[in-house]
Amino acid sequence: MIKEGDLVFLYCDEKRNYLVRAGGPSLHTDKGVLAIKEIVGKSFGQALETNLGIPFFILKPTLHEMVMKVNRQTQILYPKDIGIILTQANIFPGAKVIEAGIGSGALTSALANFIRPGGKVYSYERNEDFLKNAKKNLEKNGLSDWVEFNHLEVTSEFPQKEADFIMIDIGSPWELIDAAHKSLKGGCRLASICPTYEQLTKTVFSLEEKGFVNIETMEVLVRKILVRRGKTRPEQRMPSHTGWLVFGTKTI
Amino acid sequence: MIKEGDLVFLYCDEKRNYLVRAGGPSLHTDKGVLAIKEIVGKSFGQALETNLGIPFFILKPTLHEMVMKVNRQTQILYPKDIGIILTQANIFPGAKVIEAGIGSGALTSALANFIRPGGKVYSYERNEDFLKNAKKNLEKNGLSDWVEFNHLEVTSEFPQKEADFIMIDIGSPWELIDAAHKSLKGGCRLASICPTYEQLTKTVFSLEEKGFVNIETMEVLVRKILVRRGKTRPEQRMPSHTGWLVFGTKTI
Amino acid sequence: MIKEGDLVFLYCDEKRNYLVRAGGPSLHTDKGVLAIKEIVGKSFGQALETNLGIPFFILKPTLHEMVMKVNRQTQILYPKDIGIILTQANIFPGAKVIEAGIGSGALTSALANFIRPGGKVYSYERNEDFLKNAKKNLEKNGLSDWVEFNHLEVTSEFPQKEADFIMIDIGSPWELIDAAHKSLKGGCRLASICPTYEQLTKTVFSLEEKGFVNIETMEVLVRKILVRRGKTRPEQRMPSHTGWLVFGTKTI
Amino acid sequence: MIKEGDLVFLYCDEKRNYLVRAGGPSLHTDKGVLAIKEIVGKSFGQALETNLGIPFFILKPTLHEMVMKVNRQTQILYPKDIGIILTQANIFPGAKVIEAGIGSGALTSALANFIRPGGKVYSYERNEDFLKNAKKNLEKNGLSDWVEFNHLEVTSEFPQKEADFIMIDIGSPWELIDAAHKSLKGGCRLASICPTYEQLTKTVFSLEEKGFVNIETMEVLVRKILVRRGKTRPEQRMPSHTGWLVFGTKTI
Repeated sequence: MIKEGDLVFLYCDEKRNYLVRAGGPSLHTDKGVLAIKEIVGKSFGQALETNLGIPFFILKPTLHEMVMKVNRQTQILYPKDIGIILTQANIFPGAKVIEAGIGSGALTSALANFIRPGGKVYSYERNEDFLKNAKKNLEKNGLSDWVEFNHLEVTSEFPQKEADFIMIDIGSPWELIDAAHKSLKGGCRLASICPTYEQLTKTVFSLEEKGFVNIETMEVLVRKILVRRGKTRPEQRMPSHTGWLVFGTKTI
Repeated sequence: MIKEGDLVFLYCDEKRNYLVRAGGPSLHTDKGVLAIKEIVGKSFGQALETNLGIPFFILKPTLHEMVMKVNRQTQILYPKDIGIILTQANIFPGAKVIEAGIGSGALTSALANFIRPGGKVYSYERNEDFLKNAKKNLEKNGLSDWVEFNHLEVTSEFPQKEADFIMIDIGSPWELIDAAHKSLKGGCRLASICPTYEQLTKTVFSLEEKGFVNIETMEVLVRKILVRRGKTRPEQRMPSHTGWLVFGTKTI
Repeated sequence: MIKEGDLVFLYCDEKRNYLVRAGGPSLHTDKGVLAIKEIVGKSFGQALETNLGIPFFILKPTLHEMVMKVNRQTQILYPKDIGIILTQANIFPGAKVIEAGIGSGALTSALANFIRPGGKVYSYERNEDFLKNAKKNLEKNGLSDWVEFNHLEVTSEFPQKEADFIMIDIGSPWELIDAAHKSLKGGCRLASICPTYEQLTKTVFSLEEKGFVNIETMEVLVRKILVRRGKTRPEQRMPSHTGWLVFGTKTI
Repeated sequence: MIKEGDLVFLYCDEKRNYLVRAGGPSLHTDKGVLAIKEIVGKSFGQALETNLGIPFFILKPTLHEMVMKVNRQTQILYPKDIGIILTQANIFPGAKVIEAGIGSGALTSALANFIRPGGKVYSYERNEDFLKNAKKNLEKNGLSDWVEFNHLEVTSEFPQKEADFIMIDIGSPWELIDAAHKSLKGGCRLASICPTYEQLTKTVFSLEEKGFVNIETMEVLVRKILVRRGKTRPEQRMPSHTGWLVFGTKTI
């Protein structure tokens, strides 16, 4: 049974879907009004009808929704890129993670989800508005307990040491390679995302100079396929670039 | 300090790298012999030299290595596809997961890693050789404690109920949609991978008939970029198809 | 020197560009009015300024503009797909080509351009409005002399025989495989475009049954890269599907 | 009826196919011996059997075969990239084309095919071995009459002026932008292919400095789909990079 305050994903179709807290204010949609307070007491998988009788299904939010539905004050990391980070780095329940540049808290939500219950994400952000917004997003996603929010522009050193994974998501990643090197455990990985080719090469060369090995750069493309009787085909337009993901492993 | 039996990733370059247990037998490579017993007592990030003086770095294995280095008796799920599953489904520390078709234990390793410490993966496999091999792979990866290995061909029902996530990775996924529906929590997601269009359409239509919603199908492509001074370019050949990933959410 | 009636491509930027006949009526743009009659007497490569002083360059139209700027009453074949057809089929100056389904005349323009001066494109279209529109597009592109426009729904046979290349661009390509076989030279190729997987498989199986060999199916993706100082990156969204191209060669 | 010396494409399957001159020496394959002299007098579309009774079909070569089967002494331009050039530039029967860097004559074959009968391709190559090899390839393809082969390293100027299209396919394309500008008709396009990012950015910036407009950069990907009853899927590995194509139009 869904309780007041539970996070639910209300799904009508690909374009009409919402991430809300059960018991919150009513939601006005082009398919009618959704009485969000009536979700309390229902079960996941049931439908909530609008006043016009259109069903919205009450679903368990996945990481995909938590990431895509953050209130955005910045570019976010997309699930396609987050997925690759989850497999390419040392992320596990209990991991100690440092993140430079919290942005809107999209990746932070994913990291917090998977380092639970014994781990922690130490996030650094120099822009106070971004940090506040990211914190709200993490709170909405029910994951803020596993994040330490620091309003600080790191330049030479992070307070934490012996991190299992460090993510650098700022405009000039190469400026933090040295600081990251000091805080990363030997044999563990650092990741960064670079939207432009110039950022990419500069970041990779900095990693090489600092002795990182197994440096890998990749881009991820996801194409949806629309499966319909007699009319199955890929989508006609797709996202074709977010950024290149860079990974490197610290040696000592 | 690395102890006897610790899993380590020995990395020389993109083609020469190994996943081994510290203290095991020596390894013969084209760059000389690696005395694996000498890893014990060293630290992650240090190098182990072959008898010819070539350094192999002692790195912390990530999920990527655990997946790619399983002993393969079947096709495996690749990290690119596993990454998307991790964001598209309800996977978190403590989750109860069912997997039909363990294959070589590649995805199983990823699921086990992320549902720790309180969760469990219930795996079903009708081929006993595959199951034994997968179990060995999970043991090598240090993740077998979070997996229940069942030598059983499920047809109508899984013994477990109220699963947070169900993965169907068999040749005819549509045959298990009904069983999966019985065992999945309302509002939670099922995933499958279909190498061919015929499997894909049949699986999607079965999900629709059973009332699943938010049915999504996608393919994931990862292209590596080789960053080198004055010679930066994408790799010249890449994997262009593994299978289409299908997701659907149970309604009640 | 540009003469009255010459086809010119007026280019300001990626979003503001027009295909016009020199000497035609003035053109109102958000950058001001272009006096098209003043193009007469200028040279290709020069600029024509709007009444607000914004330059539009007077360029030679390429096939890309002729194709993309047709007045569209139907889906068109895109340059990316046309380019592959030009290399995969027997198209050359003097070729005899049959086209079933003229659509808006996009591919027809490309075929007419390359079979000049001795060849001919025999186009069949059952929809009279489409045919009239396509004819106007070919006339604008200055290529209608090399096309025979037939308002006819072919079912069992084309009047022409011994064609070097046949293109089938209709909703049910498999219905014309037999007719195409009768009209194609031995050892020459047929092409079709199939937007859906169901059309694709049906078309390929029909080709197989009719004894075609070297049957190939492919999709073409083009991604633009934005090269800018310090900010070079691929475009963020791209077309991800038009249709699959099918080719097969007639045996006797 | 096929005559002695006619170019034919002998096709058994995707891996066993040859481009030969009718009447030439016998060909030894893993499916038996092909008596090439017996092709004379047969018709296109018929089969030639090996001494083991395996049929090879006698097909009309398309540009694809002429390009892919050149004797390679260099990297070649692939049909996917040639196709885009054919639509993005001013190529037509009668066109005057300049090519800097003939390589193995792959693109040259395509250009020669489409500028016939009244046009000409003026090719420049500083490496005499490459030039000789390219000439042989063009002769084999029956297209050498439309090409002028020049053993010359152009630095400041091409002898020809008023070209409809110029292709620069050398390692440092930016060094010939100035020469190309002198020889290109106003309003016409230049193309180049750049395998690396460093070449790409340098070439684009040179074009900008020289006043070229409508500068476009793109990459082309072609993925084959294997259509088989009940087993339809894309190929599992594909070419993922040849080079970026750059286009720009001369202004005056």
